Amino acid sequence: MQAQKVQMAAGSVKKLLRRNAHGHVSNLLAKFRPADVSAIIELLTEPERVAVFSILMKRNRDLAAETLNELGTERGLELLAPLNSEEISSVLQELETDDAAEFISALPEETAQEVLERMRVEDSTDVQGLLQYEPETAGRIMTPNVFSLSEDLAVSEAIHAIQTAEDLEMVFYLYVVDDRRHLVGVVSLRQLLMVAPSTPLKKIMTTNVISVKTDTDQEEVARQVARYDLLAIPVTDAENKLVGVITVDDVIDVIKEEATEDIFHMAGVDVHDHVYTSVRLSVRRRLPWLGINLVTALIAASVVAIFEPTIARFSFLAVFLPVVAGMGGNCGTQTLTVIVRGLALGELTWANSRAALAKESMVGITNGLVLGVVAGFAAYLWKSNSILGLILAGAMIINMFVAGVTGSVIPLLLKKINVDPAIASGIILTTFTDVTGFLSFLGLASILLHYIPLS
Amino acid sequence: MQAQKVQMAAGSVKKLLRRNAHGHVSNLLAKFRPADVSAIIELLTEPERVAVFSILMKRNRDLAAETLNELGTERGLELLAPLNSEEISSVLQELETDDAAEFISALPEETAQEVLERMRVEDSTDVQGLLQYEPETAGRIMTPNVFSLSEDLAVSEAIHAIQTAEDLEMVFYLYVVDDRRHLVGVVSLRQLLMVAPSTPLKKIMTTNVISVKTDTDQEEVARQVARYDLLAIPVTDAENKLVGVITVDDVIDVIKEEATEDIFHMAGVDVHDHVYTSVRLSVRRRLPWLGINLVTALIAASVVAIFEPTIARFSFLAVFLPVVAGMGGNCGTQTLTVIVRGLALGELTWANSRAALAKESMVGITNGLVLGVVAGFAAYLWKSNSILGLILAGAMIINMFVAGVTGSVIPLLLKKINVDPAIASGIILTTFTDVTGFLSFLGLASILLHYIPLS
Repeated sequence: MQAQKVQMAAGSVKKLLRRNAHGHVSNLLAKFRPADVSAIIELLTEPERVAVFSILMKRNRDLAAETLNELGTERGLELLAPLNSEEISSVLQELETDDAAEFISALPEETAQEVLERMRVEDSTDVQGLLQYEPETAGRIMTPNVFSLSEDLAVSEAIHAIQTAEDLEMVFYLYVVDDRRHLVGVVSLRQLLMVAPSTPLKKIMTTNVISVKTDTDQEEVARQVARYDLLAIPVTDAENKLVGVITVDDVIDVIKEEATEDIFHMAGVDVHDHVYTSVRLSVRRRLPWLGINLVTALIAASVVAIFEPTIARFSFLAVFLPVVAGMGGNCGTQTLTVIVRGLALGELTWANSRAALAKESMVGITNGLVLGVVAGFAAYLWKSNSILGLILAGAMIINMFVAGVTGSVIPLLLKKINVDPAIASGIILTTFTDVTGFLSFLGLASILLHYIPLS
Repeated sequence: MQAQKVQMAAGSVKKLLRRNAHGHVSNLLAKFRPADVSAIIELLTEPERVAVFSILMKRNRDLAAETLNELGTERGLELLAPLNSEEISSVLQELETDDAAEFISALPEETAQEVLERMRVEDSTDVQGLLQYEPETAGRIMTPNVFSLSEDLAVSEAIHAIQTAEDLEMVFYLYVVDDRRHLVGVVSLRQLLMVAPSTPLKKIMTTNVISVKTDTDQEEVARQVARYDLLAIPVTDAENKLVGVITVDDVIDVIKEEATEDIFHMAGVDVHDHVYTSVRLSVRRRLPWLGINLVTALIAASVVAIFEPTIARFSFLAVFLPVVAGMGGNCGTQTLTVIVRGLALGELTWANSRAALAKESMVGITNGLVLGVVAGFAAYLWKSNSILGLILAGAMIINMFVAGVTGSVIPLLLKKINVDPAIASGIILTTFTDVTGFLSFLGLASILLHYIPLS
């Protein structure tokens, strides 16, 4: 779907709304896929969005539900806000259980309770089943409606079961269970077509099934699916009983979400902060991070304060102060990024971390040597002061070496104590590189400049 | 597969290698999936890796090929380096065409030519077919072996075709073509099971097929697949003839690769820079970026140099200089991250960018007001100097407003002129926030402090 078509459709919807042609709005949107309807809705103003959604609620509840789902919880909740709990439950029960659970867990507690009470009993039970698991675990993102068959069935019976099953849009594998629902094997749809109809499933199933537990972190789920190129992964409970399945489309969402989370955390931005988030909400989410940064910046600044007398005498030092600190920060951020991403992709573990630390320290000191000499020479030429050149070179070498070491150690330590390395590494690192930069540069300066006359 | 099992297997392989028990190494590894074999190999030393790979080449070429593929081009090429072109072509022709093309395009040109000449003719033709497309386009990452059927076939004939087709591990959809291979429809495997065997495909196929062109950017391919929850997407040429298919497992790789690329580019790290890249290569890749940073840092420093006389008189200014510049940088990076990610995810376009700019400017100035007042008050308390407090507050408000504006404008402009906003935005932004920070803080200081006596 091209952006152009979406934009044209949004224009038409606006016109139809002004003419109160509700039926036409519904008919027009019904021609699009839910993902496109959500894109169209995003181009409307707030009151238009609410109007369109209430039209879909009345005339095409299925599309309303799917569109809601495509919009995601944050924007979706805005559309649910004007509705009463009766209406909310009527639309949420059209969703897959895992999607419904996501919306309900994002609702205010009281509303969530009311919505659950008004849902069909079986849906409500399923949703509450998922809500008992921790957020961002396999149990929370799985769908409990997993298609499974007994190991004693024959292929012909399996095919019949598929043909008569309802609501089976995304079946890729048949999971095979024993009489107590223990997961014992898997059969692909294509395998069913390849063998004699009387063959028992037991004969053709693969027994070495890759599965996850309900409490497996969603990031690990995504890693398994990506690693083994799966279309779906079964979820089992502590007793190895099959309780759900996670499909590859949900895994793609997890991968995108986790990547966004890492990128945002490294910059101190909340993962829900989007281009369209309100100014008030964005400020409220970003201020705390900037506040912490201000505190650490002032701590680093207090190091400079110690050397005020030296700066008063040699004011040119102030010119190079940000250079030393900044280059350490840049160098450390490179290391940090490689290490944090390595941890996220599972390439780096505590076991092989020593080699990574050694390598990054070497890279830091090598880059420090090259750039320290260049910068020192540049400073010497600029200020015609060879001592200044030496001080700058020395401070940069020290700081970039420290940057390589701390850029590796900080995320590894944070990971070890189960703190998300993406979220806190950056600020600890720059505090380190600022302090080391100021200390080494001004420290060297106060030693060397006071004893050696200006050239 | 748990990290522990992989580690134990790596230990066993090391022991077996020392005992020259090549058959046992091959048998042991054959019990693992290729993704696990690659994880095991990553835990070995360089000579062990080469030894294991040459054992697999002799005893289990299929596994050698799949493991190579799992390792990716960078690490894979290390293992191919000791081999002659005869051996390289023998292992690469076991791969899927798109994977083989990736390795061949990464080989030195002369070797690549030799390898292509030694491959089976049909494989070599397929690979060369893909290599004619630009890197990172649908044409380059598709597999040309797409399973398609004529619209005139009946369901029973389609099922027979599936049963007799070779090498069809990942068939999810049957693409339906007319007599000139134009893509006209799609049928899911499950649909085949649901209807009478005599039904013509034409009757049950979906005609509104989502497809991409050979020159579609791989990022756009990934967006389409993620957006419509597809398992595979067909690729057509300029005349809408079906030429290939891209499966969801390849799309997952693209999504991970593009996310890594964005994260790395923002930190000035090459996308191929991994935890295990050699020191020499890492230095060579990171130095240019740090060099550019040094130049811009010195440019910013030259702004400070203008105000040296002011700093000589009021040395406490040097203490707050990095605070103003740093807070602008942090604030701008938050904006930049939201905008760059919004562009990457396709949420933000040139069309709706005005609203984003307005919003981010408001966020910048609001954060600036809050933190400027806090920092100004802190500075007043610390140095008992109310003028200093005013200067710091004013400079921070100006700089954080500028950070919000430039943090939005820079990536949008870069995107407009087709430069990857992730790669260059950060450095332009921090140069801006450094210069604005220094200028506003020292500028205000030289105006206010010279006219008002120290308190």
